[in-house]
Amino acid sequence: MRITRRGGGWARARAYWSEGAAAVTYADVARAQAKLLPHLPPTPLLTCARLDALAGRELFLKCDNLQATGSFKARGALNAVLSLPALRTRGVVAHSLGNHAAAVAFAAASRALPCTVVIPHTAPAAKVANARAHGATVELCEPGTANREAATMRIAEQLGYDIIPPYDDAHVIAGQGTLAIEMHRQLAELQPDRPPLDAIFVPISGGGMAAGVAIATRSLSPATRVIAVEPAGKGLGASLEAGRPLWPENLPPLSTLADGCRTAALGRITWPICHELLDRTVVPVTDAQITEAMRLTFDLAKLVVEPSGAMSLAAALAAADALGVRRVGLVLCGGNVDFDQPLPFVRAASG
Amino acid sequence: MRITRRGGGWARARAYWSEGAAAVTYADVARAQAKLLPHLPPTPLLTCARLDALAGRELFLKCDNLQATGSFKARGALNAVLSLPALRTRGVVAHSLGNHAAAVAFAAASRALPCTVVIPHTAPAAKVANARAHGATVELCEPGTANREAATMRIAEQLGYDIIPPYDDAHVIAGQGTLAIEMHRQLAELQPDRPPLDAIFVPISGGGMAAGVAIATRSLSPATRVIAVEPAGKGLGASLEAGRPLWPENLPPLSTLADGCRTAALGRITWPICHELLDRTVVPVTDAQITEAMRLTFDLAKLVVEPSGAMSLAAALAAADALGVRRVGLVLCGGNVDFDQPLPFVRAASG
Repeated sequence: MRITRRGGGWARARAYWSEGAAAVTYADVARAQAKLLPHLPPTPLLTCARLDALAGRELFLKCDNLQATGSFKARGALNAVLSLPALRTRGVVAHSLGNHAAAVAFAAASRALPCTVVIPHTAPAAKVANARAHGATVELCEPGTANREAATMRIAEQLGYDIIPPYDDAHVIAGQGTLAIEMHRQLAELQPDRPPLDAIFVPISGGGMAAGVAIATRSLSPATRVIAVEPAGKGLGASLEAGRPLWPENLPPLSTLADGCRTAALGRITWPICHELLDRTVVPVTDAQITEAMRLTFDLAKLVVEPSGAMSLAAALAAADALGVRRVGLVLCGGNVDFDQPLPFVRAASG
Repeated sequence: MRITRRGGGWARARAYWSEGAAAVTYADVARAQAKLLPHLPPTPLLTCARLDALAGRELFLKCDNLQATGSFKARGALNAVLSLPALRTRGVVAHSLGNHAAAVAFAAASRALPCTVVIPHTAPAAKVANARAHGATVELCEPGTANREAATMRIAEQLGYDIIPPYDDAHVIAGQGTLAIEMHRQLAELQPDRPPLDAIFVPISGGGMAAGVAIATRSLSPATRVIAVEPAGKGLGASLEAGRPLWPENLPPLSTLADGCRTAALGRITWPICHELLDRTVVPVTDAQITEAMRLTFDLAKLVVEPSGAMSLAAALAAADALGVRRVGLVLCGGNVDFDQPLPFVRAASG
């Protein structure tokens, strides 16, 4: 099942598209679930009466902000690292602006593999600290995708390390999908006599989590709509509508408060899965909506979420009514807030 | 088992002391657990690798910041309200500076009873909002214990409502103890082959939670030490040592950042239980230690805790080494932070 990524660009990607959603199956996600369980206990699925009252519906919060390394990324990275062959693997390398770095470090540590992560020297100190805390060697590089990729390739070649991609990889997608297996099971345990979820709102960036969640949900809860939440301006909805990606190549990162969701386009593997399995409705959210949803999550649910982690609540508050969904799963995908920076919703101390 | 509180003061309390820890038994806590379960699912018991690394030991976080109403107080209040006789109960009333108000409102709503809470008009707007959000009628009064108690008595007499005390009540104590039943069970599920906890650190104010946790722990995990954490200056340790409360009557509230732990002395029912069952060591924590533990809980565990909710971590970081405890339960007792005020550990936005 392993699909190695060499080079990139939409033009060369056509070969993958024909595989469609078959590139990753529910069996892959279920296998990932079994592999991850000894390392990653399920994250809680929580309810919050005050949020429910505010939203006017039943919300179920999947708390991957409480996941190891502070984000869902630990799932996919660990599944990818655990899938590397035992004998010939020397170490792993990844580049990241954020949560993928700590996730790969954590995954490598679980197999006692050396790990290097390439992070631009302009990245927040908290992200670098998180990767180091999980045992990575951090290689700082100049900002820019080309610089990060070049540094990563150089390390991979010099040290013979495997590259762990952030989202466009079948093992990574299968790993992210485990959060949906947990979610459907936990809901059934919590409310055995109630219907399944009407919808799950998932923040989308490169599409690895959305794809994994959609694959697991199609098998476990086919009536549940998987609705992507994007930073306003990404325009995923138009591509889904057209049936082909409308993004030009080499788009710059999106400008959004949600630093985990700045990837402008889906990947070659994630696109066809998302196109086939996601709900046609995509909910865009603005920085103001994200900020308010962050405040509500801190204040009412008592959970620290990063901006990306508040997007699903922002979408539910803005759009669930119009979408007619009453029982709603929200993926709180990460909690890595930099507390050395002012929180967007916290009033400054006077003086 | 119900002990009605009329009047107060240490002098008149001697009658209760002879009961000692027998005033509330493990059977009472187990009964409370069965009663609460349909209303309050267990709160998560979480681990956090980065906190473990920092503390140099295994920490298990009992997340009652994620409890209904944002604090453990929902347990005791609900047990007390569910224990009121069905026929003659007209409504409930309580006075509170904080978490007890929302807890009693929540408990009353679970039985569709009317509820009034008496709150000083100087209390933070967030506390008033939390009580109202759970359905209470809020009666604002002048600050001061005497004013709050007078207003509460007047409402109780005029409306025929039952008073729900914040801590010095057998049903309240039994309800709070349910968090320890959950904790010991969850640890056994999480780590079936590992030893029990060496210690549980519990923040202490009036002593209701500490008493309940100690009663449940004596039965379920007798080798586990229950160690109280107090705001520096409370002086519980000296009283435990002396075998009698050394506090003078009518002490003013303690000056501490931990607004949930400002009660200066234990109660007439909680004192003998705590004296009999708590570890002789009491760990005092300063505002600076609380602030740092709050920051770490937000930053590494991704959990919103109020100052009282960070006290057990503060104590573990300061004292667990000297106490020789390796596997440590931390009660994160509440998460009701007022986000209209600057967080003590968050840097102000410039300008």
